[in-house]
Amino acid sequence: MASTYQPIRFSEKLSGIKDLWQPRVVAEMNDDQFKLARIEGDFIWHDHPETDETFIVLRGELRIDFRDGAVTIRPGEMFVVPKGVEHKPFAEKEVHLLLIEPRGVLNTGHAGGERTAENDIWI
Amino acid sequence: MASTYQPIRFSEKLSGIKDLWQPRVVAEMNDDQFKLARIEGDFIWHDHPETDETFIVLRGELRIDFRDGAVTIRPGEMFVVPKGVEHKPFAEKEVHLLLIEPRGVLNTGHAGGERTAENDIWI
Repeated sequence: MASTYQPIRFSEKLSGIKDLWQPRVVAEMNDDQFKLARIEGDFIWHDHPETDETFIVLRGELRIDFRDGAVTIRPGEMFVVPKGVEHKPFAEKEVHLLLIEPRGVLNTGHAGGERTAENDIWI
Repeated sequence: MASTYQPIRFSEKLSGIKDLWQPRVVAEMNDDQFKLARIEGDFIWHDHPETDETFIVLRGELRIDFRDGAVTIRPGEMFVVPKGVEHKPFAEKEVHLLLIEPRGVLNTGHAGGERTAENDIWI
C-alpha cells in the first residue's frame, strides 16, 4: 500500500513562520482552523464574543491573563478560553502555539488596532 | 494576580485512562470535543459521513489506512481525515492520541459493532 498521504509537521511549518504574532493556518476541520504562531512579549486585551478559542502550547511557557486571574500553559498542555472572556496572552520567552478556532476569527477579536494580523493566511 | 485557572495536562489525563480504544473527553470548544485515547493494534474500517476528524499524536506512531493509501503520524504531527472517507487506525505499539471532533461523534462512525466505545465520557 502506497503512503500517499502526508501528516502536518508542526516544526516544519513553524520554521517557515518568520514574524511573531502572525498566526498561519495549517489545516481545517469542518469550519475550524488550526493555526500555528510564534509569539513573544505582551499582546493586547481582547475577547471573541462569538466563539471559544483553544490554545495548545508546543514550546515555551504561555501565560494568559484574565481580569480575575491567569493560567500558565506549557508543552503538553491546553486551555480553552470561553467566548466573551477578556484575555491577554503573554510570553516572557518565545512560545510556539497551536491555536484552534472557527474560520474568520481575528487575533484581536473585536478590539481591532495595529496588532490585528492578516487573517486566513496558510503556510 | 492569583493563578486561579488550570491548564489541561495531557499526561495527567492519560495516566487515568486504563482501557485501550476508549476515548475520554478533556475539553470542549463550542460544539467540538477534545478527546484523549490510548490505542494499540488494529481498529475497524469506518467513516464519519457528517464530519471531518482530527488526529494529533502525542506518543508513538499512528498509521491510518485509507482505501487508496495510508498516512503515518508521529508526535508533533497532525492529520485531518475528511468527512465520509473510510479509514482504519493502526498502532503497532501503544499510541497516545488527541482526537478533535464534534460532540456526539462515535469512534466507529456508522459502522457500529462491538468496538463502539461509550461516548461523551469525561476524565
